[in-house]
Amino acid sequence: MKHGGDLSEAIAQFGGTAECWLDLSTGINPSPYPVPDLPARAWQRLPEPAAERNLIDAARRAYRVPVGVDVAIAAGTQALIQMLPYVATGGAVAIAGPTYSEHAAAFTRAGRKVITAGLDALPSEVTHAVIVNPNNPDGRITSLDIIAEAASKLGKFGGCLIVDEAFADVAPECSVVALCRDLPIVVLRSFGKFFGLAGLRLGFAIARPDLAGKIAAALGPWPVSGPALLIGRAALANHNWTEATRERLKQQAHQLDAVLRGDGLEIVGGTSLFRLARHRDATAIHLRLAQHHIWSRSFDHASDLLRFGLPSDDAGLARLATALMSHSTAR
Amino acid sequence: MKHGGDLSEAIAQFGGTAECWLDLSTGINPSPYPVPDLPARAWQRLPEPAAERNLIDAARRAYRVPVGVDVAIAAGTQALIQMLPYVATGGAVAIAGPTYSEHAAAFTRAGRKVITAGLDALPSEVTHAVIVNPNNPDGRITSLDIIAEAASKLGKFGGCLIVDEAFADVAPECSVVALCRDLPIVVLRSFGKFFGLAGLRLGFAIARPDLAGKIAAALGPWPVSGPALLIGRAALANHNWTEATRERLKQQAHQLDAVLRGDGLEIVGGTSLFRLARHRDATAIHLRLAQHHIWSRSFDHASDLLRFGLPSDDAGLARLATALMSHSTAR
Repeated sequence: MKHGGDLSEAIAQFGGTAECWLDLSTGINPSPYPVPDLPARAWQRLPEPAAERNLIDAARRAYRVPVGVDVAIAAGTQALIQMLPYVATGGAVAIAGPTYSEHAAAFTRAGRKVITAGLDALPSEVTHAVIVNPNNPDGRITSLDIIAEAASKLGKFGGCLIVDEAFADVAPECSVVALCRDLPIVVLRSFGKFFGLAGLRLGFAIARPDLAGKIAAALGPWPVSGPALLIGRAALANHNWTEATRERLKQQAHQLDAVLRGDGLEIVGGTSLFRLARHRDATAIHLRLAQHHIWSRSFDHASDLLRFGLPSDDAGLARLATALMSHSTAR
Repeated sequence: MKHGGDLSEAIAQFGGTAECWLDLSTGINPSPYPVPDLPARAWQRLPEPAAERNLIDAARRAYRVPVGVDVAIAAGTQALIQMLPYVATGGAVAIAGPTYSEHAAAFTRAGRKVITAGLDALPSEVTHAVIVNPNNPDGRITSLDIIAEAASKLGKFGGCLIVDEAFADVAPECSVVALCRDLPIVVLRSFGKFFGLAGLRLGFAIARPDLAGKIAAALGPWPVSGPALLIGRAALANHNWTEATRERLKQQAHQLDAVLRGDGLEIVGGTSLFRLARHRDATAIHLRLAQHHIWSRSFDHASDLLRFGLPSDDAGLARLATALMSHSTAR
């Protein structure tokens, strides 16, 4: 499958309704930030610059954006990924794979050459590079030193380094936001995954004013809905919720690991929002779970890997354990 | 001012709070479609392809999209305007002014030459053209014949005609959606204005499958929020509400005209969602209304014109009438 989170493929193949499926195919927090009551004007009026500034202020604090670095808002990180090839103009782009596939897709669609290469071995023909940190699906973390060195190198030729921190909320120590002041780095932050509100469509680009300004101009006025401005601001300003959620997700990830290991899957990576597991019969496990209406994430590039998001509660975890055991028995 | 709908400029200059202002600076229906209760999954899950298809089906019926023509969805027409320069590649673009300024701004930002020219006099160097129909702010309607001829001419050179029908919901007879099957026309439809939900961010591009497919690919997956998918579908499928609203807006526009004429303003254009009025003292009227915390739309290009959106109720209309009279008295 191309992306997690689309149950229609699962339902078409294995039946059931969306409500009866346990969807573990995404890395979205299953215990979302509670959506507050919204004033009617949030829906009715054009999103106002003052509300955008309030959201950006909350994002600056939540993501620890230093003075001298700006924030652009978008209707989801995906909207930023689609526009970046037209902002980061120039030559070829290096992307280390396997990773989230939409970066390469967007640059390729814009007619750009995409080269598979890591930051430690950037070919000379490359102008820009993209890295997902922590990486999806394996959770690999690239050190700040390597990122700083690569950004510095790219900057010498007018390029920039895009660092997609979609899952960095659960590993804030690996964020490179602090480097954006002195280096040509564009950090992408997703709101929907950690806050469990992927339907809201909210994402951020953090970069030097010249870069952030170009991105904001490319997205134009009113890039984010009125409800997203208010909900995003409330959630990002709630540091207690954020701290408690980080801790809870860590515990849930440990519990998920135990269940997966119990059936002989090896945990080979992940973050607190998803776990990457290896098993030589991964394809069979994926199918058997689907027959129990549990949807895991399989990969075209690796038939021995599955990615699991967090079940929302103990009942969901127990349901996964039972379905995995039925698999073991049936083998 | 660049756009209507931003009270922060008004408040900065003339005081008051957003709640105490009567904002007539936009063309947004002040009596919105009622927002239905939303299931939690609309906020929490990634917007699902099935929900996108349901919205598109409702849009097809509401906008009378013929077989052989496709619909792409976006987080507001503005998001489409920002992306179109990268889809409609090629040479110069003709735009007849004065009109909504963001079309020219987007093409210019993308490095394209923008020429001020009407559809009846397209220069030979032009590849694409943009027309707003009915036009904003004057409500001018361009005939289907002229649009068809221009699109046919542009098509011969691989170009296309972008027809921004942001206000066509109140004048459905002037829509050129039916022409999209045989001609290279991209029709843009705004959801937020007619349905009074501009904060939702929802818009549509209607075009031949090759064009609509390029636009959808450029916007990428999950372009529209989960709430917008559900609210948009419900509203677009409610043909009774649409019919009743068209009639009501027409009556409100007549009432607004009477109030404006009563103070000596000449109605020189508009649609049922806004009225364009001329007065030699337009600038003074704008300021006096602002002192009464009524925000009208002024124009940099014409100091004798003001645009007025509809007050939401009789009280708002009476407030406008009183403020205008105080102006007449004070002269």
